[in-house]
Amino acid sequence: MEKLKKFVEGKLFQNTILIVIIINSIILGLQTFPAVNNSAGDVLSIIDNICLGIFIAEMLLKMVAYKFFGYFKSAWNWFDFIIVITSLLSGLAVLSSIRILRVFRVFRSLKGLRGFKMISSLKPLQVIIAAIGKSLPGISWTALLLLIIYYIFSIIGVTQFGEAFPDWFGDIPKAMYTLFQVMTLESWSMGISRPVMEVFDYAWAYFVPFVLVSAFVMMNVVVGIVVNAISEVAEMNRQEEHEENGTTDIKAEIDAVKEHLAKLEEMLAKKGK
Amino acid sequence: MEKLKKFVEGKLFQNTILIVIIINSIILGLQTFPAVNNSAGDVLSIIDNICLGIFIAEMLLKMVAYKFFGYFKSAWNWFDFIIVITSLLSGLAVLSSIRILRVFRVFRSLKGLRGFKMISSLKPLQVIIAAIGKSLPGISWTALLLLIIYYIFSIIGVTQFGEAFPDWFGDIPKAMYTLFQVMTLESWSMGISRPVMEVFDYAWAYFVPFVLVSAFVMMNVVVGIVVNAISEVAEMNRQEEHEENGTTDIKAEIDAVKEHLAKLEEMLAKKGK
Amino acid sequence: MEKLKKFVEGKLFQNTILIVIIINSIILGLQTFPAVNNSAGDVLSIIDNICLGIFIAEMLLKMVAYKFFGYFKSAWNWFDFIIVITSLLSGLAVLSSIRILRVFRVFRSLKGLRGFKMISSLKPLQVIIAAIGKSLPGISWTALLLLIIYYIFSIIGVTQFGEAFPDWFGDIPKAMYTLFQVMTLESWSMGISRPVMEVFDYAWAYFVPFVLVSAFVMMNVVVGIVVNAISEVAEMNRQEEHEENGTTDIKAEIDAVKEHLAKLEEMLAKKGK
Amino acid sequence: MEKLKKFVEGKLFQNTILIVIIINSIILGLQTFPAVNNSAGDVLSIIDNICLGIFIAEMLLKMVAYKFFGYFKSAWNWFDFIIVITSLLSGLAVLSSIRILRVFRVFRSLKGLRGFKMISSLKPLQVIIAAIGKSLPGISWTALLLLIIYYIFSIIGVTQFGEAFPDWFGDIPKAMYTLFQVMTLESWSMGISRPVMEVFDYAWAYFVPFVLVSAFVMMNVVVGIVVNAISEVAEMNRQEEHEENGTTDIKAEIDAVKEHLAKLEEMLAKKGK
Repeated sequence: MEKLKKFVEGKLFQNTILIVIIINSIILGLQTFPAVNNSAGDVLSIIDNICLGIFIAEMLLKMVAYKFFGYFKSAWNWFDFIIVITSLLSGLAVLSSIRILRVFRVFRSLKGLRGFKMISSLKPLQVIIAAIGKSLPGISWTALLLLIIYYIFSIIGVTQFGEAFPDWFGDIPKAMYTLFQVMTLESWSMGISRPVMEVFDYAWAYFVPFVLVSAFVMMNVVVGIVVNAISEVAEMNRQEEHEENGTTDIKAEIDAVKEHLAKLEEMLAKKGK
Repeated sequence: MEKLKKFVEGKLFQNTILIVIIINSIILGLQTFPAVNNSAGDVLSIIDNICLGIFIAEMLLKMVAYKFFGYFKSAWNWFDFIIVITSLLSGLAVLSSIRILRVFRVFRSLKGLRGFKMISSLKPLQVIIAAIGKSLPGISWTALLLLIIYYIFSIIGVTQFGEAFPDWFGDIPKAMYTLFQVMTLESWSMGISRPVMEVFDYAWAYFVPFVLVSAFVMMNVVVGIVVNAISEVAEMNRQEEHEENGTTDIKAEIDAVKEHLAKLEEMLAKKGK
Repeated sequence: MEKLKKFVEGKLFQNTILIVIIINSIILGLQTFPAVNNSAGDVLSIIDNICLGIFIAEMLLKMVAYKFFGYFKSAWNWFDFIIVITSLLSGLAVLSSIRILRVFRVFRSLKGLRGFKMISSLKPLQVIIAAIGKSLPGISWTALLLLIIYYIFSIIGVTQFGEAFPDWFGDIPKAMYTLFQVMTLESWSMGISRPVMEVFDYAWAYFVPFVLVSAFVMMNVVVGIVVNAISEVAEMNRQEEHEENGTTDIKAEIDAVKEHLAKLEEMLAKKGK
Repeated sequence: MEKLKKFVEGKLFQNTILIVIIINSIILGLQTFPAVNNSAGDVLSIIDNICLGIFIAEMLLKMVAYKFFGYFKSAWNWFDFIIVITSLLSGLAVLSSIRILRVFRVFRSLKGLRGFKMISSLKPLQVIIAAIGKSLPGISWTALLLLIIYYIFSIIGVTQFGEAFPDWFGDIPKAMYTLFQVMTLESWSMGISRPVMEVFDYAWAYFVPFVLVSAFVMMNVVVGIVVNAISEVAEMNRQEEHEENGTTDIKAEIDAVKEHLAKLEEMLAKKGK
């Protein structure tokens, strides 16, 4: 069991999986070209299934190595698990032709992210990721605030403009999508606000504040991350400097001086006797 | 009275109000779905009115607790007060069907912001909010500058393009709205500038400088906030460090050394006699 | 003469001019509303001319006070001078109805900027303005680089797409305007790039690199200003700290300690004799 | 040979080339105006060819000076080489009228970048360029991540929307171009997402996450560069400060104090005997 764990965490195993991920990604890409798919579709499909087989084997091996429950402690393993399950489901879906399940087929391309995680030691990204991690609590509050603002504005939007513009403000989800579009500033005025203003001429009092408020909240998120990243880096630099020649060192030096002086005093005192 | 104040500021009271806010927000959301509103509209409407009743009671209790005038010292209380008043007005509006007053009905969804304020201890946002607070004077100057720029450009716009493009530059408010749209870069060229340039071919000399100037002013706002936030954080770090092992400490140490030396000198001087 | 200079630089004179600027700005605004202009146009026009008269008087007074050539040493005085001259020209233009000169009439609204300069002591903006001032050399290089990039891309654009899309790439100025629009990302793809790609399918190799390069250069400008502003603030903080309890202070303290020691040595040496 | 190298690297040679580059750039610009080209096309064409001749001579001289292989060690020389070769090819292309090769003609305008490199000592840009250089490893990882995200989303896009929207999601390159447009937020909703949502109503679950993910990744790039630039500048400032009056100085001072004390002790010890 320990041996299996070592093998599963070893370089050979990791690199093999990485290569299979890359091959599978290329296959998934090639399958989107009709010309390639028509002439060599069968071959691609076979390689695709072999890759899926290897992923299943990888999952099972890891499950054994980590004793099933240990396997599910890692978020990446959950990621692998869901991709394999949806891939199998989409295989069934081809038989039963339930169209929506075919979406799952391309989920396997997400394995590319797993590959990225495996390639990158992520060293140069560490500081920024640490900073983003540190600013996550702040961001989650901002996200909650943004959600409340979206909710308030979508309720107002549906109540006011819902009847006249059912495509944009028909219900709360539609209004939220429209507000997201407005937040990205895409066609917010010529596409949405001006047409609405032709029916409700006070509509600018709805859109302009939303643009300002959402831009302000987004700016806060960016400023928060920048500030956290900088203070993170500054903290790191300060610790490095500390280790080299810190202020505590100076204190120690002064303490040494004091000891010398105490000795001198003692000597003088003795002689004085 | 003091007891009432304590009760009003207590956890139990606060949490009850918070729950009522959340329930009321959900009701307001549900009421926007026609299907839900048709089948259970009466029930929703009753709960809605109960919530309003609780908010009125909350307001009155607080007014008594803080002796009416004290109540209005808090901006959040003004916020609550206006929401309750507009809610009552919109209730009348439903009877008398004055359409514009119905806008007020959804104002109560703004209570969600109050809820946010109550949930969040806002700890992780403190530094950024402090930074924004500090940069507000700078921003207000920038806002004044932006207003003057808007005013100048809207006067030029109305005088030059007003007759040919009444929808965009018909009067100063319309021109300001158009300029706001141009500032967000939304369809500024294909939607506004190019059509104007077909009539007035020198119009690019109006739009391009405005885009550049407004982008520059906005960038200043962002840079100002980032710089303030960073120096705020740096200041905080410096103070923390100060408390641990500051430079004043070193001075004190050196003073101690000097005292030792003075003692030694005295001793030597005495012996010399 | 000295007396006149003092008067011209005095608070009373400054504030009077400021008020005239504000009144004139309001008049210019009111004149854009046809309703107001029809009913009270004559009155507005008279006040407008009085304001112009005051501005001329201000200019002449300052010219006398600073001995004509001294007047033109300040950029703001040039600003005032050009506004007054163009205002007078536009007055003539109304008589002779040369349409283009009427543009000058609204130039007087730019006086608002002068007003802003007079109101604001600009204190809270100082650091950021200093930072922008410091980053101007860097920005001017970036601006030159941007200009060269624009020139290169507009030559390529005119040569390749000029015949097929005369409105967008007909000549170099038109191509530069189009590239500016693309840089602001406004309708760059749906409005410009996709139509061009329908004729020249390799056009994406022109637009996508331009979007990336211009975004990168603009980002550099912003990063440069942020970094300069921060190091400016850090420098200021460091100097403040220096004045309070700098490292040189500690040196002085140690020197004092050394002097004490030298004295002691001398005393011991004397006694040793 | 050494003499030739010195000549080639000398000011006279450099400035001559710079002037030729500027003249050639102006000629290339003038050739785009049909009016100028018709009346003085022959003259322009002759000057153009002279410039090309000078560039060829410059290239050959440098090749001799650096012994051919040494010439290709500089990226800028490669740049020159490719421009000269493509210019010669485009000369042939005019004869043989292969249209695509005519693109190469305007490649010579890229010489302007060479000119920029020669004009600018680039001093004020150094810190920012150093910072960008330092953040390149981080950016290249982010670029790889972005590429994987693009690939995954384009595979999903082609599989899901390819048949219904062949212009936008017909194959992987088309889908990637569309995703790039969506990343720049240009018409992503009104132009792309809403039409797609009319056929596939779950399409928002494709576009909204992509907008969020790509915005997040781009923000990371910007934050990374800002943070690197700032720590770069801070590092430089720290080193400057170090040179002036560093903490090591203080250590040296204290060491001097200790030496004094040791001497004193010795003196006392001697006397004690």
